[in-house]
Amino acid sequence: MRKVAQLAGRPARLKRREFLAEGPQAVREALVLHQERLAAGEPGIVYEVYASESCLDRHPDLEALAEGTTAYLATDEVLAAMADTVTPQGILAVCGFLDVTLDQVLDAGPQLVAVLCQVRDPGNAGTVLRAADAAGADAVILTASSVDIYNPKAVRSTVGSLFHLPVVLGAEIEELVARCKERGLGVLAADGQGQLNLDQLQDQSAARRLGAASTGSEYPLESPTAWLFGNEAQGLSAAELELADHRVAVPVYGAAESLNLGTAATVCLYASARSQRN
Amino acid sequence: MRKVAQLAGRPARLKRREFLAEGPQAVREALVLHQERLAAGEPGIVYEVYASESCLDRHPDLEALAEGTTAYLATDEVLAAMADTVTPQGILAVCGFLDVTLDQVLDAGPQLVAVLCQVRDPGNAGTVLRAADAAGADAVILTASSVDIYNPKAVRSTVGSLFHLPVVLGAEIEELVARCKERGLGVLAADGQGQLNLDQLQDQSAARRLGAASTGSEYPLESPTAWLFGNEAQGLSAAELELADHRVAVPVYGAAESLNLGTAATVCLYASARSQRN
Repeated sequence: MRKVAQLAGRPARLKRREFLAEGPQAVREALVLHQERLAAGEPGIVYEVYASESCLDRHPDLEALAEGTTAYLATDEVLAAMADTVTPQGILAVCGFLDVTLDQVLDAGPQLVAVLCQVRDPGNAGTVLRAADAAGADAVILTASSVDIYNPKAVRSTVGSLFHLPVVLGAEIEELVARCKERGLGVLAADGQGQLNLDQLQDQSAARRLGAASTGSEYPLESPTAWLFGNEAQGLSAAELELADHRVAVPVYGAAESLNLGTAATVCLYASARSQRN
Repeated sequence: MRKVAQLAGRPARLKRREFLAEGPQAVREALVLHQERLAAGEPGIVYEVYASESCLDRHPDLEALAEGTTAYLATDEVLAAMADTVTPQGILAVCGFLDVTLDQVLDAGPQLVAVLCQVRDPGNAGTVLRAADAAGADAVILTASSVDIYNPKAVRSTVGSLFHLPVVLGAEIEELVARCKERGLGVLAADGQGQLNLDQLQDQSAARRLGAASTGSEYPLESPTAWLFGNEAQGLSAAELELADHRVAVPVYGAAESLNLGTAATVCLYASARSQRN
């Protein structure tokens, strides 16, 4: 029990390369991925499941999904002591680290990648990962100085998306950008002061698709793209901005100074997704 | 000092119709609006400003903006005792309630309105208000059972946008929708299970603009629109969905079950803003 609770802290996570998935939805996604891996002859990713009887009664699919894993019945008190949240909702799973290498991501020929540069808040990192998943992105990459995506709050904010798409951790931004460019990915920096306007890029993309006369194309959003998203307070650093092919602003039509990281990243990723799919 | 600190709680806010703006950015936006109102011969909205000397040294514009208001120098200890945050960043303002009536909003002929239905989390409400401001929306309306937008966390999440656009509080959803429709606003419900696809609506809108053959138009996004956004856990209720002209889904291209409230609302509002402005 103490060994499980320790996974709320980073040292134990790093040492054991394990993290906690809490609540029925996250555990379900973890188990689905676990069973898919086993079926493909790969190692599983769920090491232990702890659940209350009432939780399994409410979610009978979880018991079936957990078949073959090391599963324990636990009281709500024991679960609360093991979990990071006050209300772990009756189930948690000890999972193995999921992150892959940059090579694995690039070798798969990605069309859309989200890069988090020095993002510090676990909730923000999780929100962007969830939005990247929703937009159909092929991977999320976190630079070396970013928050730990296995932090329980980050895992919760992904609402299961951590188990849906490949994540690369600890990337060095210069090497990362160089490698993306080598593979033909355009690199766009999301930047409130950017010289390109995201809505104009979308209009140009729509005009091309419809065969209408375009007003010129500053960056074809339909090309394979890696988006760089910066720290929530400072945005991207001058050095990070310098590495991108273009700086792109989400236009602000009202009086707000900017959008927050999660909402801005979602608008950017959906703009690419829509242009690429058309 | 105790009277200021009480504004962290709802009873004192409601009784005095006052709330707290904390930190240089929020106080600056409050003071800008205050001075604009005074210049227009209207009552001001900032009743008292409390600031540390070092904060005014760092932000000399605030001292000028606060001219004519009741301003006090305070130590960081006193500010911390008055503020809701642990680090109030050296300045806070006691402001008068800003909300307006539904009539005031509708009489101004709004093009884009965001309606929050039973949204419970102050951070989410603030995030949507900020996004609505960025997208150039004309107003934000909260239904009766929604979180208090004057909650200090909600105010902080708006990052000053609370002072930028009109807010209506305590709306009854049925009356609100009926009144919006009377004034020619289309009413769209953001709903993951919606039968209309937001990206298809955007494509149809772009095709119309470019004179290309359209695949039909289920709802012209360029029309005046009120968006309904639901509770963060349950979404819109069956009764709320029933009231809308259409239910619209942000398409999910990956494996995520959905977007969160803030990111989904931002994508919807920007889709309308883009179509209306073209």
